[in-house]
Amino acid sequence: MATLIFDTYGKNRVRLLRVTRDGSRHEIVEWNTQILFEGDLAESYMAGDNSKVLPTDTMKNTVYALARKTPIVCVEQFARDLGRHFLGRLPHLRQVKIEIEATPWSRIEDYDAAFAQAGKERRMAACTITRSQETSISGIRNLQILKTAGSSFAGYPKDEYTTLPETDDRLLGTVLDADWSYSPGTHDFNGLHTQIRARLLATFALHRSLSVQHTLYAMAESVVAEFGAVSQIHLIMPNKHYLLADLSKFGLDNPNQIFVPTDEPFGYIEATVGR
Amino acid sequence: MATLIFDTYGKNRVRLLRVTRDGSRHEIVEWNTQILFEGDLAESYMAGDNSKVLPTDTMKNTVYALARKTPIVCVEQFARDLGRHFLGRLPHLRQVKIEIEATPWSRIEDYDAAFAQAGKERRMAACTITRSQETSISGIRNLQILKTAGSSFAGYPKDEYTTLPETDDRLLGTVLDADWSYSPGTHDFNGLHTQIRARLLATFALHRSLSVQHTLYAMAESVVAEFGAVSQIHLIMPNKHYLLADLSKFGLDNPNQIFVPTDEPFGYIEATVGR
Amino acid sequence: MATLIFDTYGKNRVRLLRVTRDGSRHEIVEWNTQILFEGDLAESYMAGDNSKVLPTDTMKNTVYALARKTPIVCVEQFARDLGRHFLGRLPHLRQVKIEIEATPWSRIEDYDAAFAQAGKERRMAACTITRSQETSISGIRNLQILKTAGSSFAGYPKDEYTTLPETDDRLLGTVLDADWSYSPGTHDFNGLHTQIRARLLATFALHRSLSVQHTLYAMAESVVAEFGAVSQIHLIMPNKHYLLADLSKFGLDNPNQIFVPTDEPFGYIEATVGR
Amino acid sequence: MATLIFDTYGKNRVRLLRVTRDGSRHEIVEWNTQILFEGDLAESYMAGDNSKVLPTDTMKNTVYALARKTPIVCVEQFARDLGRHFLGRLPHLRQVKIEIEATPWSRIEDYDAAFAQAGKERRMAACTITRSQETSISGIRNLQILKTAGSSFAGYPKDEYTTLPETDDRLLGTVLDADWSYSPGTHDFNGLHTQIRARLLATFALHRSLSVQHTLYAMAESVVAEFGAVSQIHLIMPNKHYLLADLSKFGLDNPNQIFVPTDEPFGYIEATVGR
Repeated sequence: MATLIFDTYGKNRVRLLRVTRDGSRHEIVEWNTQILFEGDLAESYMAGDNSKVLPTDTMKNTVYALARKTPIVCVEQFARDLGRHFLGRLPHLRQVKIEIEATPWSRIEDYDAAFAQAGKERRMAACTITRSQETSISGIRNLQILKTAGSSFAGYPKDEYTTLPETDDRLLGTVLDADWSYSPGTHDFNGLHTQIRARLLATFALHRSLSVQHTLYAMAESVVAEFGAVSQIHLIMPNKHYLLADLSKFGLDNPNQIFVPTDEPFGYIEATVGR
Repeated sequence: MATLIFDTYGKNRVRLLRVTRDGSRHEIVEWNTQILFEGDLAESYMAGDNSKVLPTDTMKNTVYALARKTPIVCVEQFARDLGRHFLGRLPHLRQVKIEIEATPWSRIEDYDAAFAQAGKERRMAACTITRSQETSISGIRNLQILKTAGSSFAGYPKDEYTTLPETDDRLLGTVLDADWSYSPGTHDFNGLHTQIRARLLATFALHRSLSVQHTLYAMAESVVAEFGAVSQIHLIMPNKHYLLADLSKFGLDNPNQIFVPTDEPFGYIEATVGR
Repeated sequence: MATLIFDTYGKNRVRLLRVTRDGSRHEIVEWNTQILFEGDLAESYMAGDNSKVLPTDTMKNTVYALARKTPIVCVEQFARDLGRHFLGRLPHLRQVKIEIEATPWSRIEDYDAAFAQAGKERRMAACTITRSQETSISGIRNLQILKTAGSSFAGYPKDEYTTLPETDDRLLGTVLDADWSYSPGTHDFNGLHTQIRARLLATFALHRSLSVQHTLYAMAESVVAEFGAVSQIHLIMPNKHYLLADLSKFGLDNPNQIFVPTDEPFGYIEATVGR
Repeated sequence: MATLIFDTYGKNRVRLLRVTRDGSRHEIVEWNTQILFEGDLAESYMAGDNSKVLPTDTMKNTVYALARKTPIVCVEQFARDLGRHFLGRLPHLRQVKIEIEATPWSRIEDYDAAFAQAGKERRMAACTITRSQETSISGIRNLQILKTAGSSFAGYPKDEYTTLPETDDRLLGTVLDADWSYSPGTHDFNGLHTQIRARLLATFALHRSLSVQHTLYAMAESVVAEFGAVSQIHLIMPNKHYLLADLSKFGLDNPNQIFVPTDEPFGYIEATVGR
């Protein structure tokens, strides 16, 4: 009577820190890996038959073992290696999705073996592998940015519930999530990530913004226009409001100087742009 | 050259607390509302034309005004009212999605006007409205549950990375997210939510579990079997591991008594079941 | 030239879940333990001499081993047992402090072995043991409460920065942290915790509040007055503001019905009351 | 019968973002302020007499008004200005404590008006002012650091619950909280903060660590030795464990390459060092 319409399972938050030693000079990366399987697994749900259910504990062990066996290149390559490993040895799988978030560490001064965590931003990579294709996505998570000039918002429809004043000079702040799909094959993933991130930030900084939507699209378009390897890009840009403090009650003006940062409520803007 | 493939925008975390007064006897509800619009909005992205962009600030104001004007029935009905309001007056919209999470408050003893927040569980409702149909979803978020008997995990494939021992008596803990779609029309949403929640918990408690997948499916199936108004149900059940403490190093046995709760890594199991 | 003025070390977040089995009927407790040592440890800081530094990993192991060896009575007793264990075998220690937070689980219906996490509130117990005395503290953490009647705030000083209107009917919400010291010796810790919690809530519910300070003191005083075993009580009651939504812009009244819950900024009120 | 032993009240999380404009070139700071009053306020608790209770809402307004009226120098100076303001006009106060955390923003490339949030680290300043003295504290919160060489832990006492192996080469990671008191008077707070932070990090990087305690003391001592303006320094350094992944089960060695970062349990080390 009941039907299994969709199912997936896997392991979340498999964390590893890897130290590479070149004499006394060290490098580190920290990765947080998520693994998701889809395939011929209905019997495990409907009959408790575990004969095809690779334990998620084994997935975790595999991450550590493969990390030891393969040299570090980049998160995109490791995601692909992991996905191929599982799909290659488990014939009942239809798809494996690997997603990795890299925690940024930067060297303290020029010390050989001391590092500081660089912030809340994460670099992400996802690889979805099926029997017929591999899709690589790279991205940015949780990059908090703000522009204090070049942003207006006006010309919008009003109704009886509208109280927002139009403005030709406001703060525009967001916490950027961006991810983009690469055309098939291998790319210089590290180099492209750096360049695309810089392109997104430059457009954000320089765009004459008429709305968050307007700037989001300009950022997306600038990446699609410049990077042929990118087939499409997806951006989420919540509008983290900075409210101008009303100081008139105290006999003070406030020429766009003192703002109140707020966490909620917040606007939400999301779009996908292709070529 | 670039194309807008998908776009949506709206307002998140519009919070309200509503007090209903029947003489000195009060009732309260606390709701957190999210609004998302889709429609003919490409010009706002591509040209900065805001003439169709209802400000998200107006969305927020509308939530408070409608909350004042309409009697409380249930989150499902309020989600529907909000969605119809926006779709009805903005002809360029194709779809409005409203999602509400209700924070649980319970009366302290039998006092007229004193309440305690009941926990981390949230009741959610989502209503997606287009020009041709309305879809109502209800659900549960963040309900942490644990069973200490009737759970085994064995018979799974082993490879060189498998270290997990088979077990016929383990703890099974999860943080349940569940949501189910109702057939079209109006239902007794409050009554059904209570009954479906109870049905999910009873199945969880009594099921002879061979895996998380197995129990997830049993829970989903029991809802589909019992409630004709439910067209399908979607469950996410992360496997929050409780590790048996190894006390043998200290000359102590541990007959399934002392466990170490862990937050990460965790297994992830998700499925959708229909009829 | 430099002097060590104060030092302490220990282990945080040692988590355990304990299952007690009476045939098929199970009970569970979940405890999160923190251990802090003070004593003759300056050489470890100043010279790297570890000969008196019991590893924090050993502290953790000890928690699990003692949990296995001792029957469950209550968190207060387990905190005392742990503290005595360490102070008894490490002569260089001057003081051991153990703090435990208990996560609340409640039985699902009347099922033998299924439980749901009951909320964000935590029961805490702390025991500080020196060579000459033992101090037991019990308390509550993170209990979110709200009263919708019987609360006013007026008669306060105004200056040029005051914009808050006086009110004789507001919502009063807080997230209560409470802890109280017991007189020396052993008490019915479980029974007293239940009764003191109920006393605090009853006073909160019934008090005719002129300010948060006023209600905080009434709550504290009611405990000191009723429970001779309590030598003093310490309360923290942040004022979690619920703002009356201003609907007049939309031609609507709002007779204390629709409020906006806010997380920040918030008032902070703290006091200790003795006899 | 009951006595008020201690009391304080104030406002938390008053957030402001301030834009300074030099033509098209902008600078920003973001500050989160906490205010705490102590004084002759017992009647507010015991009798609900609000005649001396400056509303915390007024405190908040004052922060914004003073921010507008005073030029930005540094958080230390603004904390002092705020404290003096309140103590100066409210004769019933005995003490005002102001604590400010600054959120780090850095310019994106060299753009005039675009900024990115630089991380989770916060710069803090606290000023405690009474009728007879002013105490200034500066500090660092939440600076996550890691050293991958030069750290051992051995020579500690063992008992029957000790399983930790001694090591002469481990990872040492922490999330540093540091705060230091300045001698009375005004200092170059910005310059000193930069130099003291650098001194702490250099010592962390270069110290031949025999334990976290040992390195904490070396860091504190290096600040006291170098900076005469610092009267004492207080450090909290949780030991955030990185566990060497055991790959021997898979026939792989692991020469200090692959580690598992863990959040809990964690060691806790705290000390205050003076001269």
